[in-house]
Amino acid sequence: MNIFEKKDLLYGGDYNPEQWLGYDGIWEQDIQLMKKAGVNCVSVGIFSWALIEREEGVFDFSWLDTVIENLYKNGISVILATPSGARPPWLSQKYPEVLRVREDRVKHIYGKRHNHCFTSPVYREKTAIIDEKLSKRYGHHPAVIMWHISNELSGDCHCPRCQERFREWLKAKYDNDIEKLNHAWWGAFWSHHYTEWSQIESPSSIGEIGVHAHVLDWKRFSNDMMIEFYNHEVSAVKKYSDLPVTTNFMEIEEINYHKFEKYVDIVSWDCYPRWHNDKESVYDTAVWTAFHHDLFRSMKQKPFLMMESTPSLVNWNDTNKLKAPGLNILASMQAIAHGSEGVLYFQMRKSRGSFEKFHGALIDHDGSGETRVFGEAAQLGRILKDNAKLKGGSSDSQVAVIYDYENGWAIDELCGLKNDRGYKETCIKHYKALKGSGINVDVIGPGADFSRYKLISAPMLYMVPDSTAKRIREYIAGGGIFVATYLTSYVDENDLCHLGGFPGGLKDVFGIWNEEIDSIYGENAVIANGSEYTVTDFCERIHPDKDTEVIATYKYDFYAGEPAVTRHGYNKGMAYYIGARTGVDYLHRLYGEAMQKAGVLVPDVTLGKGISMTKRGEYTFLMNFSDKAAAAVSNGVNFTLEPYGFKII
Amino acid sequence: MNIFEKKDLLYGGDYNPEQWLGYDGIWEQDIQLMKKAGVNCVSVGIFSWALIEREEGVFDFSWLDTVIENLYKNGISVILATPSGARPPWLSQKYPEVLRVREDRVKHIYGKRHNHCFTSPVYREKTAIIDEKLSKRYGHHPAVIMWHISNELSGDCHCPRCQERFREWLKAKYDNDIEKLNHAWWGAFWSHHYTEWSQIESPSSIGEIGVHAHVLDWKRFSNDMMIEFYNHEVSAVKKYSDLPVTTNFMEIEEINYHKFEKYVDIVSWDCYPRWHNDKESVYDTAVWTAFHHDLFRSMKQKPFLMMESTPSLVNWNDTNKLKAPGLNILASMQAIAHGSEGVLYFQMRKSRGSFEKFHGALIDHDGSGETRVFGEAAQLGRILKDNAKLKGGSSDSQVAVIYDYENGWAIDELCGLKNDRGYKETCIKHYKALKGSGINVDVIGPGADFSRYKLISAPMLYMVPDSTAKRIREYIAGGGIFVATYLTSYVDENDLCHLGGFPGGLKDVFGIWNEEIDSIYGENAVIANGSEYTVTDFCERIHPDKDTEVIATYKYDFYAGEPAVTRHGYNKGMAYYIGARTGVDYLHRLYGEAMQKAGVLVPDVTLGKGISMTKRGEYTFLMNFSDKAAAAVSNGVNFTLEPYGFKII
Amino acid sequence: MNIFEKKDLLYGGDYNPEQWLGYDGIWEQDIQLMKKAGVNCVSVGIFSWALIEREEGVFDFSWLDTVIENLYKNGISVILATPSGARPPWLSQKYPEVLRVREDRVKHIYGKRHNHCFTSPVYREKTAIIDEKLSKRYGHHPAVIMWHISNELSGDCHCPRCQERFREWLKAKYDNDIEKLNHAWWGAFWSHHYTEWSQIESPSSIGEIGVHAHVLDWKRFSNDMMIEFYNHEVSAVKKYSDLPVTTNFMEIEEINYHKFEKYVDIVSWDCYPRWHNDKESVYDTAVWTAFHHDLFRSMKQKPFLMMESTPSLVNWNDTNKLKAPGLNILASMQAIAHGSEGVLYFQMRKSRGSFEKFHGALIDHDGSGETRVFGEAAQLGRILKDNAKLKGGSSDSQVAVIYDYENGWAIDELCGLKNDRGYKETCIKHYKALKGSGINVDVIGPGADFSRYKLISAPMLYMVPDSTAKRIREYIAGGGIFVATYLTSYVDENDLCHLGGFPGGLKDVFGIWNEEIDSIYGENAVIANGSEYTVTDFCERIHPDKDTEVIATYKYDFYAGEPAVTRHGYNKGMAYYIGARTGVDYLHRLYGEAMQKAGVLVPDVTLGKGISMTKRGEYTFLMNFSDKAAAAVSNGVNFTLEPYGFKII
Repeated sequence: MNIFEKKDLLYGGDYNPEQWLGYDGIWEQDIQLMKKAGVNCVSVGIFSWALIEREEGVFDFSWLDTVIENLYKNGISVILATPSGARPPWLSQKYPEVLRVREDRVKHIYGKRHNHCFTSPVYREKTAIIDEKLSKRYGHHPAVIMWHISNELSGDCHCPRCQERFREWLKAKYDNDIEKLNHAWWGAFWSHHYTEWSQIESPSSIGEIGVHAHVLDWKRFSNDMMIEFYNHEVSAVKKYSDLPVTTNFMEIEEINYHKFEKYVDIVSWDCYPRWHNDKESVYDTAVWTAFHHDLFRSMKQKPFLMMESTPSLVNWNDTNKLKAPGLNILASMQAIAHGSEGVLYFQMRKSRGSFEKFHGALIDHDGSGETRVFGEAAQLGRILKDNAKLKGGSSDSQVAVIYDYENGWAIDELCGLKNDRGYKETCIKHYKALKGSGINVDVIGPGADFSRYKLISAPMLYMVPDSTAKRIREYIAGGGIFVATYLTSYVDENDLCHLGGFPGGLKDVFGIWNEEIDSIYGENAVIANGSEYTVTDFCERIHPDKDTEVIATYKYDFYAGEPAVTRHGYNKGMAYYIGARTGVDYLHRLYGEAMQKAGVLVPDVTLGKGISMTKRGEYTFLMNFSDKAAAAVSNGVNFTLEPYGFKII
Repeated sequence: MNIFEKKDLLYGGDYNPEQWLGYDGIWEQDIQLMKKAGVNCVSVGIFSWALIEREEGVFDFSWLDTVIENLYKNGISVILATPSGARPPWLSQKYPEVLRVREDRVKHIYGKRHNHCFTSPVYREKTAIIDEKLSKRYGHHPAVIMWHISNELSGDCHCPRCQERFREWLKAKYDNDIEKLNHAWWGAFWSHHYTEWSQIESPSSIGEIGVHAHVLDWKRFSNDMMIEFYNHEVSAVKKYSDLPVTTNFMEIEEINYHKFEKYVDIVSWDCYPRWHNDKESVYDTAVWTAFHHDLFRSMKQKPFLMMESTPSLVNWNDTNKLKAPGLNILASMQAIAHGSEGVLYFQMRKSRGSFEKFHGALIDHDGSGETRVFGEAAQLGRILKDNAKLKGGSSDSQVAVIYDYENGWAIDELCGLKNDRGYKETCIKHYKALKGSGINVDVIGPGADFSRYKLISAPMLYMVPDSTAKRIREYIAGGGIFVATYLTSYVDENDLCHLGGFPGGLKDVFGIWNEEIDSIYGENAVIANGSEYTVTDFCERIHPDKDTEVIATYKYDFYAGEPAVTRHGYNKGMAYYIGARTGVDYLHRLYGEAMQKAGVLVPDVTLGKGISMTKRGEYTFLMNFSDKAAAAVSNGVNFTLEPYGFKII
Repeated sequence: MNIFEKKDLLYGGDYNPEQWLGYDGIWEQDIQLMKKAGVNCVSVGIFSWALIEREEGVFDFSWLDTVIENLYKNGISVILATPSGARPPWLSQKYPEVLRVREDRVKHIYGKRHNHCFTSPVYREKTAIIDEKLSKRYGHHPAVIMWHISNELSGDCHCPRCQERFREWLKAKYDNDIEKLNHAWWGAFWSHHYTEWSQIESPSSIGEIGVHAHVLDWKRFSNDMMIEFYNHEVSAVKKYSDLPVTTNFMEIEEINYHKFEKYVDIVSWDCYPRWHNDKESVYDTAVWTAFHHDLFRSMKQKPFLMMESTPSLVNWNDTNKLKAPGLNILASMQAIAHGSEGVLYFQMRKSRGSFEKFHGALIDHDGSGETRVFGEAAQLGRILKDNAKLKGGSSDSQVAVIYDYENGWAIDELCGLKNDRGYKETCIKHYKALKGSGINVDVIGPGADFSRYKLISAPMLYMVPDSTAKRIREYIAGGGIFVATYLTSYVDENDLCHLGGFPGGLKDVFGIWNEEIDSIYGENAVIANGSEYTVTDFCERIHPDKDTEVIATYKYDFYAGEPAVTRHGYNKGMAYYIGARTGVDYLHRLYGEAMQKAGVLVPDVTLGKGISMTKRGEYTFLMNFSDKAAAAVSNGVNFTLEPYGFKII
């Protein structure tokens, strides 16, 4: 049986029984408590390398055999991990090449995790050996339902071999023509004109970090090497097994998962919102979380899997507050609402020592099932059991927000304008303004099929290659509503500025010319329909064409009275341009109007403060992200939700 | 004559006449001004290596002969230092092995001080040679009363030889059984399971810094190497001399002086409070200072020596404010009150150039005795002369605060909960709450004899090995009052969490189970006897046994109404548990009650704002740490103290 | 024709046509737009090395021939740069010695700019070859009017060769006597007594950075190497050309331009004020700018050249605000008013890619001349054209402020007192207090001819060698008015403290003894003529001689009532001593009185808020650095200035 054939929603998480070898009774206690909590699936084997292969080439699977067999006997499925996320000490001692080299050309010594060189032939050889053995031994075990490749893949390496691979990658990209690279990297600037491929080095704080296209290419290369390494492991486990594969994605911005998604059978991600932090409301944390659920769900337009989360607290914030009673259940149900096929924790039992011993877990150091956290987790186990019907249900979004990882890289790298740029934060603000109407929203990459949507929001889409400009043009021409903002289409895929005026290649579509961008201290404001809305950070001076409507103007500074927001009909569609960084209040109003024009079906609801609404399949979720009871009216029916309560309709 | 035979309190400090070789008349002026100020003792030779051994193996003691002879003739004693605190340039040029390697494996080049490798055979050889020569030449000189070994010993080295010594140290600790190390370091986590000792490296930012037991062992090892180096020098000076030895301890938290104290004949320390800083009152700075005096005094339960202090300002704060008139005398008398055998400054004369030329000194650059600072110092000289009777007098404390260096390391290293942990600050807060009653308080290590005390306060005693748990249990069972707080007994000596519930091994003694700890932003409060007290940072959810009294409860958050502070009778004694971080106001109240139950003799005094009271021998000191006059009533007698004034009763 | 023979003020700036090789029509468009804007001069060749010498020894000047010929045909002069500011990749690939080594002994790899080793024989050889070729080819071209040597020379290198050169430099300075060095560096401190020159290393964070004289000598040495490198390039271009030479100086404090000025034929500098920042008013930014114009003008007491500026924004602030309409014209005219022979921008056309693509330029990415920025620049072109009469006109200042680069280094390096020292900021505050009267003010080095001035202000002149003390004494004795402040004459040229009391060597001249300096948190105040003025940071306790007048006293702290500011007649002149850091309000008042005593001719003007007044030759400029209209009355005539407006009278 594989994961797609399971009837129930998955419940469980990471489990490291190898930490308790030599502790009598702990494994039995684990199983007993997991069953008590309703756990039906655990991830095993992450970081187990050193306990399986204690000596090079000498494998001992006996403890793992026992663990998997026990789990199976007790009705608990296994997601089996390849152990490449961390190395045994003997490996790097014998083969130092597996260790990464930092950007400043300092080579790591043994330690930590997630820090091997992705191109290392030795590391690939050693992972293939152990992966194949795992595949052969457990690939058909009835407990095992999926492969979990490595763990939280990320990072880059600057070793000589990676330098050489980088040069090869560049040769391939630039048709073996170094002049093409010189043009893309604008090599005449500061005399950085290369004449031999061997002159090229990866970006470095002791060398060059200011050539934007160089940095972009390095990030793309490193992304590719990571995926290549992943696929290398996939090949190994597929040798003896046809189970589905995944790897756990993360919230991070450094990896372009839109290039990765096609290589996993189900998208999974590790979900660690900063609940109860002192910078934002719980509702806003829930918006952040929902954005990410929808991002990972939209990748395959299919249910995904929340691979990690915590039942209580984490151990990496400055202040690690406990989840309030009810919040873990609510947050878990939010994942389900947005398309997760289950709720998995890191971890089943708190480790006794080392770095993560104060990270939340189902079973605490006391070893009892008497804790508040365990009690709530068991309650959630029952709820999940009762809601197997939700499994498989999909979203049906009419609107989408574009979040483009590489665009984020380009915005981060650019030198100038304003240092606080907040690309992802801005996408989340736009998402929030849309989502607040109770609709489902997709979060898509720039290469997604635009035609699915009646409205597309594309905040800060700074990097617009000609091919993307063409697709935007066609989308709007075909009747789509497209909302863009300041910083739209300044550069092409190599961070070369578009010539001829911004938004590059789309001036006629938006019916504007963006002459210059002001970065501001403090605040300005825009006036729209007689109301005033605060703007911050960025104010563009835009010139509308004759047939372009100005729907908001600036209030202050030397461009007071000039256009700030415009609307332009283009063929069958319409293009909005928001020239300044407005707040959610203004965006909510603008999107309200735009959705109406787009014919988006907005549900007839009134949502009290803190309430979020989402549909999965035919079920509608109302969730109260607030420590106060709140009310909602949906299609004329009144609902009252307890603090941190939820309802499935 | 040695230091213990001196009748007078010592007065003087560090003296570097070698800086003025070639300046006619300066040495004579020095002696004249020192005598004018009442100086009777100076420390000589610290950092003099390069001027004694200008060339390898070629020694010139002539200038030092003259200096010591002149001092002797003028009645000034000498504490003679070994010069190992800084190297001559020729030494590291010829023997680079004496230079330290940083944690990131970067080797130092020549410069600074206190930065030699403690395990270097060459450095040991060279220090032994010069130390023995000093011992032979001056070990019986009538001026010399004590050896001052090196200077402010500290730090660690990561060179290959230290790595090898570290492995040997580990082998010894873990009975040559690497599986014991793997268990202690929780090696199964992240696959850090070692199979060869040679795989082990010291903690490093380019390797591993997150394995807590690994870091703890490294710190213990480095502490041992420092002491080993110290003892190596002691052996050298003892070769021809039986004078007492010391080295100057510091306020720092990185060194476990409780392991060092037994190797010095008198504990001495360098006392640099941040008087007049903008973060706290002068009284609070005095509390900080008193805590440290009592910490160093309690080590041997004998008078100690304030080896360094400044008569005016220092040169290492962001803002270096002058000591106000009177404050230097008051602060110096505070040292005496808490058990110092004298007042020593850094330094006698300000250096003309280099790094410390703006650090306070008895004699300023102007060279006159006409400065305010000199005038007050001379006044102090007369006061000290008049108070020789205080010498030798000891404390007789009935209460103690446990301050455990290694516990502080473990708290600092742990990953999670809350980043602002403030272990020492918390100990000082508890000390302040006790000391405010006018009693004498000891500050002891976890290995001290508990039976001396009627009450022991042990804030944040996170690391409690079984042996310590046993001693705490016995102390309370025997009738002691023990006050513990949040974070008590989470881990053993290797930072492995206690299983079975916190406080590990002491649940029955405290009559509670600590289920979980909340780290909070901002404030919560506890209610005790109808009054409300602010708490911050940490709030534990504790469950009292049936016979446990709840003496305070939480006011806010989801655990409002739950127990925050408890009291539990155990056998003949009593155990308090304070589950949240309260302020000094609440602590003062709680300790008031606890001292009463413990039968601590609290003096009948009313102390005005800023006044501190301490007893040395039969003398009681009243000290006004305030720029306003203040009153005290002691046993019905009224005292008025001038701003920064004091009285000895 | 060379720059000195040009009739018009220069207008134009940096031009990099090599970035647009392969773009048809861009060069023609450049010329057309430059002419439209009134541009008559561009700087060409900066960073062009890689496009001229694509392969070692193979030179292609064809594109440069065309560019220069086109410019010439269109009446645009050329300042021709040597390209040494950045290397082609092949150069460091083949000759790694040209790359700098950082202070922590890490060698750079290829990247960035302005980072070659100044002492590298290879780099000197390669620059000489290309410079000579440029000289031969273009040294007599009628378009070329000046050589621009390298670009923004700066920095230091710690490679083994530079270490060796440093040792040679030290030998020369210290007469080959290492004991002289040991005395200057106060080598007995911390045993840093050198016995071989080979023991000496440059300052390093992995070695020694705390020996002040060591750091000072290193900075002086590095300054000398930079100038030596510059002169090496001058020799190369002079081989076939007798055109004047310059290099673009900067606002930075790390370079002692007073040692550099004599090697340039005209002083030029890159002028980048932080207009519209959120920390200060536009007027204060204008004061900052004026100070620097006057500093660079005073170097040769001749007109200078503003070599770079921006027509709109820059790209290196956290927030890069647009210049408000009118401000670029005003700021440009301010440069002219203070003595610039023209207005040059970085740059003519925005680069399409890489690090500086969002730095302001005459021609934006859109390529049109339709932008606001271009429009205002063209307007300025006309104004400059109409004001050729201003060219050559000089200042005639009666007062001067001493700004001494090396004194700034010494103040920055010193350990102690207060970390916020703000030497240059303080000089600017004193400059502002003087300049506010509408007079012209010189900003001079400590070696300038004092006799030109009726009044000299010398804020924080901490480092006063005996020779300077003598010149100050003579200046005052001869009738000069001299204003000094706290921190005056603490040390000699090697940062060795003056013995015998501060201000060292000048106690009798100022008629005071400065006993000690208090560094304060928050504020104190001084009372002068019944008014109270805030003081911050530094308060000295000074003792006046009998014939010294106390003109302000402290209000708070233990020295309340003691002298804070004094005035002392010395021979025919007068010496003021300001013992505390006062604000501009007090300084304005004090300088008003002092100028009156000095007989400085102060114009009869009333300047509205934001207005600055300056004379160049016979023309008086009134400039309104404010976004509001403002009025001025000069010699009874009323003027009203528009926001950001100016008038030439």
